[in-house]
Amino acid sequence: MDLFGTAGIRGPVTEVTPGLALAVGQAVAARLDPSDGPVVIGRDGRETGAALAGAAEAGLTSGGLDVRRAGQLPTPALAFASRGRHGLMLTASHNPPEDNGIKLFADGTEYDRAAEREIERLVDSGPDQASHDQWGTSEEIEPLAAYRDSVTEYAQRVGAPLADLRIAVDCGTGMAGLATPQVLTTLGADVRALNANVDGQFPARESKPTAETLTDLSRFVADGPAAFGIGHDGDADRIVILDGDGEVVHEDTILAIVAEHYVDRSEAGDPVVVTTPNASGRIDERVAAAGGRVERVRLGALHEGIARVREAGTDETTVVFAAEPWKHIHPEFGEWIDAVVSAAVLSRLVAEEGLDSLRDPVAERPYRKVSVDCPDDRKAAVMERLHGRLPETFPEATVDTDYGVRLDLPDGEWTLVRPSGTEPYIRVYAESDDVDALVETVRGTVERAVTDAE
Amino acid sequence: MDLFGTAGIRGPVTEVTPGLALAVGQAVAARLDPSDGPVVIGRDGRETGAALAGAAEAGLTSGGLDVRRAGQLPTPALAFASRGRHGLMLTASHNPPEDNGIKLFADGTEYDRAAEREIERLVDSGPDQASHDQWGTSEEIEPLAAYRDSVTEYAQRVGAPLADLRIAVDCGTGMAGLATPQVLTTLGADVRALNANVDGQFPARESKPTAETLTDLSRFVADGPAAFGIGHDGDADRIVILDGDGEVVHEDTILAIVAEHYVDRSEAGDPVVVTTPNASGRIDERVAAAGGRVERVRLGALHEGIARVREAGTDETTVVFAAEPWKHIHPEFGEWIDAVVSAAVLSRLVAEEGLDSLRDPVAERPYRKVSVDCPDDRKAAVMERLHGRLPETFPEATVDTDYGVRLDLPDGEWTLVRPSGTEPYIRVYAESDDVDALVETVRGTVERAVTDAE
Amino acid sequence: MDLFGTAGIRGPVTEVTPGLALAVGQAVAARLDPSDGPVVIGRDGRETGAALAGAAEAGLTSGGLDVRRAGQLPTPALAFASRGRHGLMLTASHNPPEDNGIKLFADGTEYDRAAEREIERLVDSGPDQASHDQWGTSEEIEPLAAYRDSVTEYAQRVGAPLADLRIAVDCGTGMAGLATPQVLTTLGADVRALNANVDGQFPARESKPTAETLTDLSRFVADGPAAFGIGHDGDADRIVILDGDGEVVHEDTILAIVAEHYVDRSEAGDPVVVTTPNASGRIDERVAAAGGRVERVRLGALHEGIARVREAGTDETTVVFAAEPWKHIHPEFGEWIDAVVSAAVLSRLVAEEGLDSLRDPVAERPYRKVSVDCPDDRKAAVMERLHGRLPETFPEATVDTDYGVRLDLPDGEWTLVRPSGTEPYIRVYAESDDVDALVETVRGTVERAVTDAE
Amino acid sequence: MDLFGTAGIRGPVTEVTPGLALAVGQAVAARLDPSDGPVVIGRDGRETGAALAGAAEAGLTSGGLDVRRAGQLPTPALAFASRGRHGLMLTASHNPPEDNGIKLFADGTEYDRAAEREIERLVDSGPDQASHDQWGTSEEIEPLAAYRDSVTEYAQRVGAPLADLRIAVDCGTGMAGLATPQVLTTLGADVRALNANVDGQFPARESKPTAETLTDLSRFVADGPAAFGIGHDGDADRIVILDGDGEVVHEDTILAIVAEHYVDRSEAGDPVVVTTPNASGRIDERVAAAGGRVERVRLGALHEGIARVREAGTDETTVVFAAEPWKHIHPEFGEWIDAVVSAAVLSRLVAEEGLDSLRDPVAERPYRKVSVDCPDDRKAAVMERLHGRLPETFPEATVDTDYGVRLDLPDGEWTLVRPSGTEPYIRVYAESDDVDALVETVRGTVERAVTDAE
Repeated sequence: MDLFGTAGIRGPVTEVTPGLALAVGQAVAARLDPSDGPVVIGRDGRETGAALAGAAEAGLTSGGLDVRRAGQLPTPALAFASRGRHGLMLTASHNPPEDNGIKLFADGTEYDRAAEREIERLVDSGPDQASHDQWGTSEEIEPLAAYRDSVTEYAQRVGAPLADLRIAVDCGTGMAGLATPQVLTTLGADVRALNANVDGQFPARESKPTAETLTDLSRFVADGPAAFGIGHDGDADRIVILDGDGEVVHEDTILAIVAEHYVDRSEAGDPVVVTTPNASGRIDERVAAAGGRVERVRLGALHEGIARVREAGTDETTVVFAAEPWKHIHPEFGEWIDAVVSAAVLSRLVAEEGLDSLRDPVAERPYRKVSVDCPDDRKAAVMERLHGRLPETFPEATVDTDYGVRLDLPDGEWTLVRPSGTEPYIRVYAESDDVDALVETVRGTVERAVTDAE
Repeated sequence: MDLFGTAGIRGPVTEVTPGLALAVGQAVAARLDPSDGPVVIGRDGRETGAALAGAAEAGLTSGGLDVRRAGQLPTPALAFASRGRHGLMLTASHNPPEDNGIKLFADGTEYDRAAEREIERLVDSGPDQASHDQWGTSEEIEPLAAYRDSVTEYAQRVGAPLADLRIAVDCGTGMAGLATPQVLTTLGADVRALNANVDGQFPARESKPTAETLTDLSRFVADGPAAFGIGHDGDADRIVILDGDGEVVHEDTILAIVAEHYVDRSEAGDPVVVTTPNASGRIDERVAAAGGRVERVRLGALHEGIARVREAGTDETTVVFAAEPWKHIHPEFGEWIDAVVSAAVLSRLVAEEGLDSLRDPVAERPYRKVSVDCPDDRKAAVMERLHGRLPETFPEATVDTDYGVRLDLPDGEWTLVRPSGTEPYIRVYAESDDVDALVETVRGTVERAVTDAE
Repeated sequence: MDLFGTAGIRGPVTEVTPGLALAVGQAVAARLDPSDGPVVIGRDGRETGAALAGAAEAGLTSGGLDVRRAGQLPTPALAFASRGRHGLMLTASHNPPEDNGIKLFADGTEYDRAAEREIERLVDSGPDQASHDQWGTSEEIEPLAAYRDSVTEYAQRVGAPLADLRIAVDCGTGMAGLATPQVLTTLGADVRALNANVDGQFPARESKPTAETLTDLSRFVADGPAAFGIGHDGDADRIVILDGDGEVVHEDTILAIVAEHYVDRSEAGDPVVVTTPNASGRIDERVAAAGGRVERVRLGALHEGIARVREAGTDETTVVFAAEPWKHIHPEFGEWIDAVVSAAVLSRLVAEEGLDSLRDPVAERPYRKVSVDCPDDRKAAVMERLHGRLPETFPEATVDTDYGVRLDLPDGEWTLVRPSGTEPYIRVYAESDDVDALVETVRGTVERAVTDAE
Repeated sequence: MDLFGTAGIRGPVTEVTPGLALAVGQAVAARLDPSDGPVVIGRDGRETGAALAGAAEAGLTSGGLDVRRAGQLPTPALAFASRGRHGLMLTASHNPPEDNGIKLFADGTEYDRAAEREIERLVDSGPDQASHDQWGTSEEIEPLAAYRDSVTEYAQRVGAPLADLRIAVDCGTGMAGLATPQVLTTLGADVRALNANVDGQFPARESKPTAETLTDLSRFVADGPAAFGIGHDGDADRIVILDGDGEVVHEDTILAIVAEHYVDRSEAGDPVVVTTPNASGRIDERVAAAGGRVERVRLGALHEGIARVREAGTDETTVVFAAEPWKHIHPEFGEWIDAVVSAAVLSRLVAEEGLDSLRDPVAERPYRKVSVDCPDDRKAAVMERLHGRLPETFPEATVDTDYGVRLDLPDGEWTLVRPSGTEPYIRVYAESDDVDALVETVRGTVERAVTDAE
């Protein structure tokens, strides 16, 4: 059974059932030994979380492992609590309330593909119980306060004190309400929280933070004295930043700012930032300016990228930051996606320089993303054709064909063409001062390739 | 020792210490018997609440009573949980974070003055422990869900379904964040919550909800699509309503609306609304229009007023509502001040008629309140003089001298003159279409009385 | 699927798995509505109990019901806590530690056969979840103290104060350790407890209390000053009494003593004791002497018997006691099997009269039970033959063929012949001053019937 | 105020009140800083423990420290949980139920005299609260399972597996019921537990384990198959061993056995056993035989003795065991008195060699203790005289006058003369094959000194 997608197990609770949570719990237990320590179980604010957590606990303990119940908390706080042991988080991140999901962690890091395959195999092979005198026990723990303290302490190493910096935070009735306002307040900010009550039905806004869903926050910031705004998703692994006018700051700009900062303060001889092919060249520019380099890895595979950089690197190589748009790993703090840390770090940076100054050196070129129809069974042939034709179309470009075809053009312009993993499309991403022209050229080449592959 | 003010025991935690909470716990226990049932302990979100609650618990159990720990919850939810037993709430309501306090409840109602005096006497008389084999035990309970369900169910009897009515609620990082958004959402509203995270330091705004402290909410409502706004204090016994323009609706107008509604739907032959002398004549007008009558009682003594009305009344007499400005008792639901119920009931009324239509029949005459200097030792002589002089000044007025001197003039105009209980002032309240003229006339009379009493 | 045996669902945890507990939880939920109230979940001391309880909770809440978690407690305490709602107990009673099981209660009474059939049908029909926004919630409760108080109060209505009566109680590391010593101590006894630590592996003795397993208790009582001994099984629904010499008092004698007591103190015009066909005539004798009557019902069906007696009875009819050997229902206290109540009631009776005096009027005739080989497929034919032949062999007997063939002979002697429900035997029970002769006569008749049915 | 006796704060709860617990909590907090970590609070089974623990928690948190609530557990388990932080235990050890007390721990070791004096001074100086925004928080923890696991693991390093060794344990309804039976069972023993239910009123026997109070255990062991018996006090810091005949093994013999074992297995060049002046010479004999040495320190001051030995010693010096009669410190496991460890270690030694073989090499000479009347004001003069006269009376003796006058005679005989700290007596201890003669000689010398000092 293919349980795991790019973000763990996720789907409607008619599929992610208590029975499945029980089976996954037993599968996790089957791979481990009591000496690996207890498994920490957490959940986001969804109404279905408690039952799924109870079923997962039954699976783990009947499989012979001890459990620590951490209750409702952000996904990064569960990852934090899983250091030195394993963790199981019930969350569907920013999916709608009818969904739920399971994320697995080992020592702070999400299970890799190999571990996920083993879980899938074990779930398929049916229930696997320990002998009746080997079942584990369960205790309650409260890691949230320690997590908040750690984030606070970590953030104090960068930027400047928040000294009454006014920040508006829209928690979207998700788990961020238990962490971001508290951390920023402790850091000295004057925080105004929207939707910081926990409600797993997400009644106030869709859980995914976007320009479309953050209209309340946008108005609140635009009309009021807040220096900037922060929006989170349901389990606080995503962050969106709004400037003082209530406008969403482009996710790649945020990446560029944080990446530059981390490279800048790193004492490593070879500081590396890991990101994904669809991430803008502005990141590369800022990282290069600060004396570091960027490595790209396919979407949803940041950990794989981190591991690869380390393997290929020297003693001087240090991954200082790893991020997809909206999702940031701060390796010095911990190797999980952590938007609470992002909120704290960015706030400290803003307190030091102001958001405008931070953005100033980042070249925010126009960006577009389009989809070209292409039946699934023709994708391979189309991409093969494009491997040749796109470089021909842009002879001046540097070509990277690791994940789709990425062309880097002079002046930080670039385009990426790759097949969608789930839908009948070829995706075209482009960033350029004249993005429409660039997109049209690429789209034409792709459409011809689709036609030719018929 | 004078422990109790008009709102229970309240003050800085350098005075409301764990030692005092322990002593009050033992005093409560000394008046009761284990057969009176356990005492429910609750607290608001202040950081000092847990320690004070622990000390109170130690006092109660060492005094021989059992305890039920209800944790953080709104004061009205604690009152709800104290039905059929006693309750002890650690809260300083809307006071600043350096304060805390103790409110005592018996069967849902705050201790009356006689019971408070007995507690004071017992605290003065020193520690009073039960025999070592008679100490009580303590258990955790979670009454919050049942409270929210009850409020929801109660509110459904009035007005209309909230069908996506958009309501903005500013919880001020107080206890309302655990109840009002949830109740309104369950009732069908589209709720946007401000400061619904719990923070006992009240970092987002002062806890007392006023036009001055609710600026964020005001802007949020004025600029956005919310039909109206609700502001609460730290323990959710106060409510302030903002109209769709973000303007505070006068507290007496809210009282008039709710009072009229309760009289209107009452099937009693003699429906009575209890309020205080400083409350506007607009309440009397609406109550009279709906076929009921108003009785007044001194500030902070609504329960005394309710009791007096019942004693003096007939079988047909029913107290349908009792309220001071911002603080409402809904007797059919329970005899405690409950701003969560107010939020739910008002929302259902707004859903039915619209806030403007509700306000329309209420005559919102201009209102002013001024203070005239008067040394404490002259207050009695001044008031005695005014008992005679004010009626002389306004021969057309109906005079009531129960609590100060209140003069009701034609067309719903009125003035109230009473000595401040805590400061060297005579207070003058007045409401009139020409309020300045009325105030000046009264002020002159008062000032002369002060001079004459020299 | 045939889940339920005579004592609910029970078996090794390789059969009574978390998956089954989850399915039973959802099945229970499918028959009920949230308005039926929450379901109380309890468990005995087995190590597998917590995981199964967690799975059952996941089933119930994902099925839309709320849950109250009562933790470890005796089965009768769970039944007590299920009054006015439903209850689910994880226990395999006195079975070995590798087993566990599920008992279901509605308002204090075990599910009847019809309800069990419906649960089986629902489990067979597969998972049945509520809509994602209808899943229930779960809270912890602690009903044990209230249960112990209720038992104490109830027992004080009978017999005499325990005034330092020394009683030895062997809790067998089961749930009785949480209730019987405490109740007896509160009643004034000087209790010495054996194996009152909770250990679900039953390391000190087999959980089933018998003369063979209670050797420690027997010695402890025989050699010491305890007036008598009490032995319990793993979940405290069984009780065995040892006299001052450490000898097990015959279970039917205990039944006769308690039954006589209840009939004696009943003010009903038609007091009835319900018992089973294998229970001794000495019960009938004592009940008759006290002015009551006995009704028998098949083993494991006391509730059915109680219901039948009530239906067939008049306004004067009251079931005052219902019991199988070792398992007693005290209807005035509650309609569940309750060995803690039995311990308390018997102790108060002993305190009043002494155990010897209580036994004195009970005719304790010799008793034997033998098994005659008989293939399953011949049982029906054999029993048919015996319906005729046994009465012929004992022409002086009163014959009852409701459950097997029971012959009541003069002087309280009796014999019962019935096919085993689970093994290839015909069971012969007999009680007589010359029990060997009686048994041999009956055995001969049965063996001939088996041979003839070939 | 002199709060602390030789065993911490202890007395009737009319003196050890919630008010005192609150004050001690604040005093502990006043000496520490939040960075010293949270304070773990535990309590024994007394009914007054929960209230006192609540008051102590209020004191600690209002003093600015965080708290971890460990609930009911043995004193050694609380000491275990206080490693790396501080601990506060509510217990009056084996005192009657009307008493309670407070023991303070820093990193596993009881507060020394200097720390106690500081607490006394701080309690005297009155309440001392932290600023309202610095009060600590409190969480529940469950250290009992980890403690049992650690003890089990530690004991497995010595002796032999318990392979069904039958051991009777009388827990005296104290805290041992939560640890000793479980640990011994996990180690493989066949444990029979007496009074393993927790009851803070100690209804089954006095809490102090002595030959007089352990009559039930004695009979149980004498008449049954148990290899030996173990008796504990209320908080499991004391242990008494009964042999297979149910006779108490002399406490010094137990000390000698364990001391010899620890010296024997030590790899240190200078293994030292610390004990008290009233402890028998048989200890010295066995320690010497194993190649170690004994150091003595006044009663109640084992930690002082340990520290002194370490200071005075070399790199080769290791304190391998420290004990007063019935109270044992196992330094390799932890520096607190721990009778659960003693139970486990002794059981493993018995499993290896048998109790008789262990006792065999220990010379169990007759022992007597007598008291000679001596007014308090004459004690100093009497002891001064005896410093000279006793050595004269026994010219062959080695003399030690550190704590009273101790004379070691040839063949392991010895006598100790010291003034009682609390009563008008001079105590004489003696051990000798002809103990009566030795006692009479010493008594004569003492009486003469008393007369002469008149």
